[in-house]
Amino acid sequence: MPPETLVYTGEMQVENPDVTIMHYNDVTISEKLLRGLDCPLSTSDMTTWYDVRGLNDVKLIEHIGQTFHIHPLALEDILHTSQRPKWEDYHNGIFLVARALRLNDKTLELVMEQVSLFLGAGFIVTFQEDEHDLFHAVRERLHRAQGKVRQKKADYLTYTLLDTIIDDYFLILDKTEEVIENLEEQILRDANKTSRNKIYQLKRLFSDIRRAVLPLRDVIGRFSREEGVFVEHSTNLFIRDLHDHLTQVIEGLDNQRDMLSNLHELYNSELSNKSNHVMKVLTIVSAIFIPLTFIVGVYGTNFDVLPELHYKNSYFVMWIVMVLIAALQLIYFRKKKWL
Amino acid sequence: MPPETLVYTGEMQVENPDVTIMHYNDVTISEKLLRGLDCPLSTSDMTTWYDVRGLNDVKLIEHIGQTFHIHPLALEDILHTSQRPKWEDYHNGIFLVARALRLNDKTLELVMEQVSLFLGAGFIVTFQEDEHDLFHAVRERLHRAQGKVRQKKADYLTYTLLDTIIDDYFLILDKTEEVIENLEEQILRDANKTSRNKIYQLKRLFSDIRRAVLPLRDVIGRFSREEGVFVEHSTNLFIRDLHDHLTQVIEGLDNQRDMLSNLHELYNSELSNKSNHVMKVLTIVSAIFIPLTFIVGVYGTNFDVLPELHYKNSYFVMWIVMVLIAALQLIYFRKKKWL
Amino acid sequence: MPPETLVYTGEMQVENPDVTIMHYNDVTISEKLLRGLDCPLSTSDMTTWYDVRGLNDVKLIEHIGQTFHIHPLALEDILHTSQRPKWEDYHNGIFLVARALRLNDKTLELVMEQVSLFLGAGFIVTFQEDEHDLFHAVRERLHRAQGKVRQKKADYLTYTLLDTIIDDYFLILDKTEEVIENLEEQILRDANKTSRNKIYQLKRLFSDIRRAVLPLRDVIGRFSREEGVFVEHSTNLFIRDLHDHLTQVIEGLDNQRDMLSNLHELYNSELSNKSNHVMKVLTIVSAIFIPLTFIVGVYGTNFDVLPELHYKNSYFVMWIVMVLIAALQLIYFRKKKWL
Amino acid sequence: MPPETLVYTGEMQVENPDVTIMHYNDVTISEKLLRGLDCPLSTSDMTTWYDVRGLNDVKLIEHIGQTFHIHPLALEDILHTSQRPKWEDYHNGIFLVARALRLNDKTLELVMEQVSLFLGAGFIVTFQEDEHDLFHAVRERLHRAQGKVRQKKADYLTYTLLDTIIDDYFLILDKTEEVIENLEEQILRDANKTSRNKIYQLKRLFSDIRRAVLPLRDVIGRFSREEGVFVEHSTNLFIRDLHDHLTQVIEGLDNQRDMLSNLHELYNSELSNKSNHVMKVLTIVSAIFIPLTFIVGVYGTNFDVLPELHYKNSYFVMWIVMVLIAALQLIYFRKKKWL
Amino acid sequence: MPPETLVYTGEMQVENPDVTIMHYNDVTISEKLLRGLDCPLSTSDMTTWYDVRGLNDVKLIEHIGQTFHIHPLALEDILHTSQRPKWEDYHNGIFLVARALRLNDKTLELVMEQVSLFLGAGFIVTFQEDEHDLFHAVRERLHRAQGKVRQKKADYLTYTLLDTIIDDYFLILDKTEEVIENLEEQILRDANKTSRNKIYQLKRLFSDIRRAVLPLRDVIGRFSREEGVFVEHSTNLFIRDLHDHLTQVIEGLDNQRDMLSNLHELYNSELSNKSNHVMKVLTIVSAIFIPLTFIVGVYGTNFDVLPELHYKNSYFVMWIVMVLIAALQLIYFRKKKWL
Repeated sequence: MPPETLVYTGEMQVENPDVTIMHYNDVTISEKLLRGLDCPLSTSDMTTWYDVRGLNDVKLIEHIGQTFHIHPLALEDILHTSQRPKWEDYHNGIFLVARALRLNDKTLELVMEQVSLFLGAGFIVTFQEDEHDLFHAVRERLHRAQGKVRQKKADYLTYTLLDTIIDDYFLILDKTEEVIENLEEQILRDANKTSRNKIYQLKRLFSDIRRAVLPLRDVIGRFSREEGVFVEHSTNLFIRDLHDHLTQVIEGLDNQRDMLSNLHELYNSELSNKSNHVMKVLTIVSAIFIPLTFIVGVYGTNFDVLPELHYKNSYFVMWIVMVLIAALQLIYFRKKKWL
Repeated sequence: MPPETLVYTGEMQVENPDVTIMHYNDVTISEKLLRGLDCPLSTSDMTTWYDVRGLNDVKLIEHIGQTFHIHPLALEDILHTSQRPKWEDYHNGIFLVARALRLNDKTLELVMEQVSLFLGAGFIVTFQEDEHDLFHAVRERLHRAQGKVRQKKADYLTYTLLDTIIDDYFLILDKTEEVIENLEEQILRDANKTSRNKIYQLKRLFSDIRRAVLPLRDVIGRFSREEGVFVEHSTNLFIRDLHDHLTQVIEGLDNQRDMLSNLHELYNSELSNKSNHVMKVLTIVSAIFIPLTFIVGVYGTNFDVLPELHYKNSYFVMWIVMVLIAALQLIYFRKKKWL
Repeated sequence: MPPETLVYTGEMQVENPDVTIMHYNDVTISEKLLRGLDCPLSTSDMTTWYDVRGLNDVKLIEHIGQTFHIHPLALEDILHTSQRPKWEDYHNGIFLVARALRLNDKTLELVMEQVSLFLGAGFIVTFQEDEHDLFHAVRERLHRAQGKVRQKKADYLTYTLLDTIIDDYFLILDKTEEVIENLEEQILRDANKTSRNKIYQLKRLFSDIRRAVLPLRDVIGRFSREEGVFVEHSTNLFIRDLHDHLTQVIEGLDNQRDMLSNLHELYNSELSNKSNHVMKVLTIVSAIFIPLTFIVGVYGTNFDVLPELHYKNSYFVMWIVMVLIAALQLIYFRKKKWL
Repeated sequence: MPPETLVYTGEMQVENPDVTIMHYNDVTISEKLLRGLDCPLSTSDMTTWYDVRGLNDVKLIEHIGQTFHIHPLALEDILHTSQRPKWEDYHNGIFLVARALRLNDKTLELVMEQVSLFLGAGFIVTFQEDEHDLFHAVRERLHRAQGKVRQKKADYLTYTLLDTIIDDYFLILDKTEEVIENLEEQILRDANKTSRNKIYQLKRLFSDIRRAVLPLRDVIGRFSREEGVFVEHSTNLFIRDLHDHLTQVIEGLDNQRDMLSNLHELYNSELSNKSNHVMKVLTIVSAIFIPLTFIVGVYGTNFDVLPELHYKNSYFVMWIVMVLIAALQLIYFRKKKWL
Repeated sequence: MPPETLVYTGEMQVENPDVTIMHYNDVTISEKLLRGLDCPLSTSDMTTWYDVRGLNDVKLIEHIGQTFHIHPLALEDILHTSQRPKWEDYHNGIFLVARALRLNDKTLELVMEQVSLFLGAGFIVTFQEDEHDLFHAVRERLHRAQGKVRQKKADYLTYTLLDTIIDDYFLILDKTEEVIENLEEQILRDANKTSRNKIYQLKRLFSDIRRAVLPLRDVIGRFSREEGVFVEHSTNLFIRDLHDHLTQVIEGLDNQRDMLSNLHELYNSELSNKSNHVMKVLTIVSAIFIPLTFIVGVYGTNFDVLPELHYKNSYFVMWIVMVLIAALQLIYFRKKKWL
């Protein structure tokens, strides 16, 4: 395919992608729902937030791209939903891609949703893959004029949206930490194939999360150094704070990866402990009974001349000797701490 | 050999290396096929693309080198087909080397083809090792005037060609990911020597791919910082996009390498599980029967005085005792989760 | 939750958080204890140290924040006690977060307490999570006018407080080094599950300490490069010294982590030595007695024609042969160094 | 020893160290052989190459050092033949140390020879440890005026000499790659102690090569950035090419090290496969025969009352039962894929 | 303890710490021995070297500190003998800390001695922990006016002293290399617990050496960039040479660490070879004799009807069958290369 063709590569299908438009300043706020290609560029001096949910209508995305003069390469990135988090600085705005993560508690499967964001002069356009609104809470806060978000401009709204995404990372880490701690207990109780498979699954999970989070830190880092037309100085401090949060997420992730590989070692060590135990049982049983079997074998032979057979107490003496041999071996094994 | 001698070190032999010349601008386009040493330098103001397929005719390469004033060291690099991707900035043009990769699905063997590219003022010369045209699709697009490629200059064509090469990397990663996932299932079903050999083969494959892709990122990085006589500002953004794609390829590669080493651990763990199982079977059988064999051995002895032999129910009592011993052991093993 | 809400996330609860105020210069010193919201900003030209112990009274923290014009994000960091050590430069002061560590000798559990510090012009505000006063010794020294601390300003006090925290890190490393050395002896004596669990526990401990210490070095590094309104030139040298101390802590930590992983290898090697020993015992016993049992088995058969049974010395010859076989095997095993 | 004393630390002894002097420009060339301390500084405007073979005559080296004003520290480096490759920039010339490598095909032993080089204004002095002339081919080319070397100055000669040394690295890598590939086949055929020792030997070999090659890249890197009195601009491009070659050598080396550690894993995996196989054989034989031996033991007992002994078909029924037991076990083992 | 208190933390106790004063220039030299607090600052224009041996007299150190205006933090560093190598630039001089190492050949224990050095204008003060004079050879050379040291200033003396310390590192590496090579032979002969313990001990040794050497390189690096009041330009070249030596030490160290971990792998591989061998012996003995024991067991049964017992040649036929079975097994094992 030629590099300039727009194709949606994601799997989430939304029947009628919505465009929600919010106009606001510190005094007034309005919310409209648009359907289809009718998406006008705001001309008022209020901050405007266009939120597109569903990317399968390529025509719509293309139309929005033309309306807001979003660069064709940025449009391509919006539709290629396996895009790694990225930052691009265009003359008419800032474009960034992040990944919202959700963890299925039971299957430990990660649902990734690409969120693209174009911050222009006085407006912001966001693209979510799924119908489900990630930014519901932010919308609520805008309506209630909670916090500083209504007094500030589109750059602060961008910060609030990214903060929402990053907060979810902490939730995921909390869940995985719990899973790891349960797993630890389980392995100490009984190391079996299930626990090993869970370790394996978590390793893949962390590697997926890492790929979503690590490049985002660079993105936020470049965002925090941006200052000028699109980002006010006072917002910078908040974006730097996001950067700190992401660093914390990554350190938490690395810490849990360490815990996981410690757990793996623990599992292996439990396994070899188990196999050592099996071996000891085998050795003890064999070492005690094989010599005794030999002794009784001797007196099972049919030689014409075998004097011991004919003494009166031979049988009982044999038993005493055998018990002594077994006792000595048991003492030896106890001394060796095999018992 | 003295360092300045030109020798072709590759293995692909092309009987009659072709030179395909395309002249184009946004209105008109022409394509000519030349054979042998007759390769004139274009003087029109149209963009010209010379494409050489087959490198074994050193004379031809030397002649082309003289025609386009390509530096002797660059000519050497073109002919040393085990060249790592490289970037060189000459006063009369930009020279870069990349590697096109193709994966044989069945044998998992990698076919590498070196592609060298000289971007001069208004023209571009490409050198492919093999007769097979890597850039067939680009040529088609030029003819059809699809996308922006006809409106733009030689620098954009360079971008398009590199994009074609890099797109193939994604295809390879898709294939290998599938192979890895099949391998995972196979190992969980039955870990045998075949799966281990496949892991081993994939490790070598990834190390080969990495060596082709990693230095190319530096090349593209330097290309993207180039701006001036040979590269227009508007093309830069596209080259930076290539850089992002390559970063994605490398991250995908590293991720699959991680998956592979997890798979290796899984294989080892399956193997030691298997050998643990074998050991348990041995231990259970031995631990149950060795003591019983001892008991029957006792009553096979030929002592003159062995009272138990003469009681009426001795034989049946012995059976009961033996069944009890075996049962107790089975209970012990069940408790230890060996059964 | 909206990002600007202040919530205390720590676990330590202090019933009536105290605010201790100390005013001092080289001549005079005073100490007051305040309760509740009554916390005035000092206006004298003496150095003032406000020390808040207990963070669960969010109202109080908010009030103090307003009094000293501490930025809302900094207040948030004070209350989020799982904050990693951080440094923030505000126009009206320097804000930094560190972690005081205490090690429970017996359980090897780490108690972490977040200490936040705001250094303004002529004053310093510290926030401790717990009622227990970490800075008791510093307070003593201020009263006794010991050392240089009374002749110097708030920046030197900051240095003294951080030095107190970092000194505790050395104490922890001394303790863990002792634990590791004991563990080594224990493993060389008898490698069992307890020692493995202790290795595992120490690994987690070091990873926790590292997360507290590593980012603090960056914080101190940035602090040492700060020079101007809030930090005097002569204090810089002392802060650089703190940086050296922290580097020493981190190197000590890395060294102990190395020791620990060497210990892990030692443990594994002991374990496989043990299992090798078990195997040797099994092999020796089996190899000696199985052939002998076969021999006695031969003469236990009831064939009508079995000539050896009827010679006079057969039984004794059999014994001699069996002793010879056993002796040869013992010599073989001794030569193989299995005995 | 005081740091300024000159002592030769190498092992190669040359009875009468030669000094070969070549004067040349693009028209004429002369070659002289000097013995002993008679080594005049050339004053003509031709390029002069002094080549000293053999370092054990410290007096001679000292004399040459004084003649060409080579710094005492450089002289020391020339004589300390375990010097790592280094670069030093003196006011009267450039001094660099490299290592020529030769691989003994059979023993896989590496012969290292230190080559020191002093590039002054219009002349170059080279020091080889051994009588054997590393630069024989270059000398030939100078005589035959082959390539560009006669038209260029001493800096290009330096490039040619270094190129000769670096070309040998590629030859070594080709040989080791062959050795590794043979080793792989051998391990897949039969993993024994010989192959493990070879892996071990190759690991040491690569670590030796790496120590010779890695610092040389830095040396060449600094050489390529040198431009001015001693190095012409046009030569720079060639030296940059050397840098690329060295990068290729190092990547090849790293790749082969990877291959080697994969091979080590393969060896270990083969070994544990083998030991698994041994275990299976033991388990199958034991599991089949131990129960059968128990059964025949039962009927070898001498109880007065043992009814089965007296039925007519008992013996044959016992055989049938035993064959059934063995058959069931074989079916179980086949199902478990142990057979 | 307050941070400004001076306390000696080392273990070496010197009864009467000496201060040796040497005054010299290229013509004359004098040496004096002082005891106690009487240590005057030289005012002549000769270079003066104050050498303090023994640090337990804190008063003396404090007095010297005041005499030469050494910063309190530097004095603290002198007395905290577990200081890592460090560099500090004061307005009145350069302060640096290094570690002299000595290796006990037999116990492989490392003796560390901290050497602190203060280089002022025209004088140098050195602090050794132990009475034993590390710099005996330098003192000799000064008296004999050997080398350049008498013609040069205090900066060159500093270089000479550091060179003495660093030369000892090479001696240690030579010794450890020998130890490693002996260990290798020993492991190939017989891998036992002693060799494993030695590997373990060497690992700790290298980690100790590394901690002494690695930071010293940074110190020397900063020293070599220092040029001005205290260090002359011509001395710089020599200090850069020290830097090269240290780099060589570190590379040698890393190389030996590599050798050591290869040795560890060799040890593990030997161990599993050994345990494989044990297993093979067990398997062969069991596999041969267990079936034979079963056969003789069959003919030891007391069935009334057991036809084979009554043929004339049964016993001999049984022997032939058993020998055949054993022979077949031996052939199988030989084919499997177990014998």
